[in-house]
Amino acid sequence: MPTKTLQDLFVHMLSDIYSAEKQLTKALPKLARASSNSDLVAAFEQHLEETQGQVERIDEIVETCGIKLKRMKCIAMEGLIEEGKEVMDEIEKGPLLDAALIAAAQKVEHYEIASYGTLCTIAKQLGQTDALHLLKETMAEEKATDEKLTTIAQAGANQEAANA
Amino acid sequence: MPTKTLQDLFVHMLSDIYSAEKQLTKALPKLARASSNSDLVAAFEQHLEETQGQVERIDEIVETCGIKLKRMKCIAMEGLIEEGKEVMDEIEKGPLLDAALIAAAQKVEHYEIASYGTLCTIAKQLGQTDALHLLKETMAEEKATDEKLTTIAQAGANQEAANA
Repeated sequence: MPTKTLQDLFVHMLSDIYSAEKQLTKALPKLARASSNSDLVAAFEQHLEETQGQVERIDEIVETCGIKLKRMKCIAMEGLIEEGKEVMDEIEKGPLLDAALIAAAQKVEHYEIASYGTLCTIAKQLGQTDALHLLKETMAEEKATDEKLTTIAQAGANQEAANA
Repeated sequence: MPTKTLQDLFVHMLSDIYSAEKQLTKALPKLARASSNSDLVAAFEQHLEETQGQVERIDEIVETCGIKLKRMKCIAMEGLIEEGKEVMDEIEKGPLLDAALIAAAQKVEHYEIASYGTLCTIAKQLGQTDALHLLKETMAEEKATDEKLTTIAQAGANQEAANA
């Protein structure tokens, strides 16, 4: 399915982030189990619920816009999750692993923020207002998660690692 | 070299972004050549200069902090650049390719924003104030580039793609 129009690019990018979100629903429980900071465990668990809701929002966009997603695997998310797995293998459970998991998760969040940012711009330009509304809801959740992770890192998770 | 301390994590993340920036200095001229929107060409060319400066800032941090970077390849950046190459192969030069290149470049910028965000937090917690100052300078450039790309997309690059 070649990319010839802005609508095609929209479908391509939506298919990519759909794969990314699906991969993330499998990775987040592992991140939560590997964390020792209770705020971090709670943040990962809450974001798992949000991510499941974000997948449903994409299903809703597909239905509303009458589009068909491509079957594809988001390679970038695969790499970002792999980075998270590597730190889990390499670092013992404790404050330092928490700091490394926060770093890995923030890269994931920023991938999503960039993707949804583009999707919002394109949805607006295509006049897809229902889709735009749903995409903005997800975007707000991704940004809030990123900010929460920054707060957890600054508040103590990393400092505990420095003192360990 | 195992990651046992927050300082080790700092060195690991700095080595990762060093590789990412080096890869980007090779990719940006290709992005500029593939773009047809003159603002976008200029943005990629300016960011190439900035990226070269960012590599030099990392060299300065290495010297100031007396650390030794790991030889490693940032797999995530490799994947993100690969995504950019795919769209260049798949889409003809013109407004639609411009829109796709902006999307790919914003994912790259967000990877860097996330990385430098973590590096700033860790540098502060390690009391590395000179490094923190340099990292903040780079962070500001990455955010400005991301915002400029959003402006170019919203101002017309994508609209031209919608009308094409």
